[in-house]
Amino acid sequence: MNLPEYVAAQRERIDRTLDRLLPVPEGAARTVCAAMRHAVLGGGKRLRPILVLAGHEACGGMGDEILEPASALELIHTYSLIHDDLPAMDDDDLRRGLPTVHRVFGEAAAILAGDALLTLAFEILARSPAGEASAARRAEAVVIAARGAGVDGMVGGQIADLEAEHRRVGAESLRWIHRHKTGALISACCEIGALHAGADAAQRAALARYGQGLGLAFQIADDLLDRTGSREALGKTPGKDQRSGKATYPALFGAEASRRAASSLVGDATAGLRDAGLLTAPLQSLAEYAVTRTG
Amino acid sequence: MNLPEYVAAQRERIDRTLDRLLPVPEGAARTVCAAMRHAVLGGGKRLRPILVLAGHEACGGMGDEILEPASALELIHTYSLIHDDLPAMDDDDLRRGLPTVHRVFGEAAAILAGDALLTLAFEILARSPAGEASAARRAEAVVIAARGAGVDGMVGGQIADLEAEHRRVGAESLRWIHRHKTGALISACCEIGALHAGADAAQRAALARYGQGLGLAFQIADDLLDRTGSREALGKTPGKDQRSGKATYPALFGAEASRRAASSLVGDATAGLRDAGLLTAPLQSLAEYAVTRTG
Repeated sequence: MNLPEYVAAQRERIDRTLDRLLPVPEGAARTVCAAMRHAVLGGGKRLRPILVLAGHEACGGMGDEILEPASALELIHTYSLIHDDLPAMDDDDLRRGLPTVHRVFGEAAAILAGDALLTLAFEILARSPAGEASAARRAEAVVIAARGAGVDGMVGGQIADLEAEHRRVGAESLRWIHRHKTGALISACCEIGALHAGADAAQRAALARYGQGLGLAFQIADDLLDRTGSREALGKTPGKDQRSGKATYPALFGAEASRRAASSLVGDATAGLRDAGLLTAPLQSLAEYAVTRTG
Repeated sequence: MNLPEYVAAQRERIDRTLDRLLPVPEGAARTVCAAMRHAVLGGGKRLRPILVLAGHEACGGMGDEILEPASALELIHTYSLIHDDLPAMDDDDLRRGLPTVHRVFGEAAAILAGDALLTLAFEILARSPAGEASAARRAEAVVIAARGAGVDGMVGGQIADLEAEHRRVGAESLRWIHRHKTGALISACCEIGALHAGADAAQRAALARYGQGLGLAFQIADDLLDRTGSREALGKTPGKDQRSGKATYPALFGAEASRRAASSLVGDATAGLRDAGLLTAPLQSLAEYAVTRTG
């Protein structure tokens, strides 16, 4: 398995789809559309949509019909970054190697661009792939994505993360935050890929669990990179967690134990998929990448 | 037709549904759930969900299955109020007679509460009414609501509205802003009510047009009330439009011509429904109320 080649090929398919989904029309809504494009097309690993594609393939899915749903998950991720970077939240100037949306377009446009990306994501999930036959799956994809993104998922994790700043947070709470802030949406990605491939309930559950484990491992790696990574490699400002007194794995357990925890999570995630007969080479490699990446 | 009685009865059904849809669990997401409830259950006319119900009835729909989709539209409306009131947007302290969400819970929680309400709205639209038979309608309801709320609807109108502050805006641009900021989501409400009653394309289009006209008239009435209404009657701070140099109907055309324009829009809206055989007493009365209301 050559992961960089696989990722590059899938990334190109996703980027072409995102480009098509985000036109900047003339007229009064121009600013917000430009802000949406700036945030989405400025870069990014595309881990979440690639996991949709990989989950889809693992369950026998083929073709391009999954590209729009996969791209919708990237829109949800990007909306969360825009709002997270706002002055009232993490107050960040740099994202994906570019000035953050509110820095370029102002705070009001950044709030609205995030809102519009979230809204567009659900529109895409509800209409794509087209056809009466897939209607039940489309409706279910909206439900899965919304649960991953809402108060029982990402938003719940974000508020808990903010409230944990400058407070003593135990291991249990930190795991809860990471599972919700990062794991829930990644888990939804894997499950939506499976759903649109016609996977059964057991397959969907296995992919959702894999996504949950990979997501938690990915967030631990993120915590580690915030301490050791460079501005260039990360495309965002490193060292922010420590300055804002954020609860992180390395702060709580130390770097070495955090690395071991991430590896162990990835081992469990892939073992679960192997048992379900769904451990493809890309899903194996993506799990390893989540913890070995340098940016 | 006794409109106050009709509205009171429908409002109670909606408020009961909203109350059930917005629990405040113990645990880490508590703050954001409390902020969501504060914003949604603090009051409000419930015009949008009542229009979903009235559109549903006009097309022969019956029963309680429409209550959750109708309530979802109120969640979308409320999310837009929370974000609109933020310091970076309209910077408002009072809404529905209560301190705004960011005043009570802080800006970060207000941003996230808005995000979570929008997300929950789409989850509800995608899962309710339950059952395989309604899946295509649920998916379509998500699409209609998203178009009404996104860059081609409400968000597009909001950014144009913000950018029009302290600038000369012509009649054409002002109509565009109002149609998008307010008309698009109200139109979506009427159409979703029809959709779930099994209405055909012509009926849906007639209700969508009625909603568009009523929405524009409602916004003109809003502009007029901002000049003449009291803090108590409006539940928000009056006089804001003038202070922030907002483009409004009375500023552009004067109060009297604005009132005539609103009446004329309502006349056209109800005439269109009458032609389509869908002008029920509630839809007639709601259109009149939109322009004669005092709060």
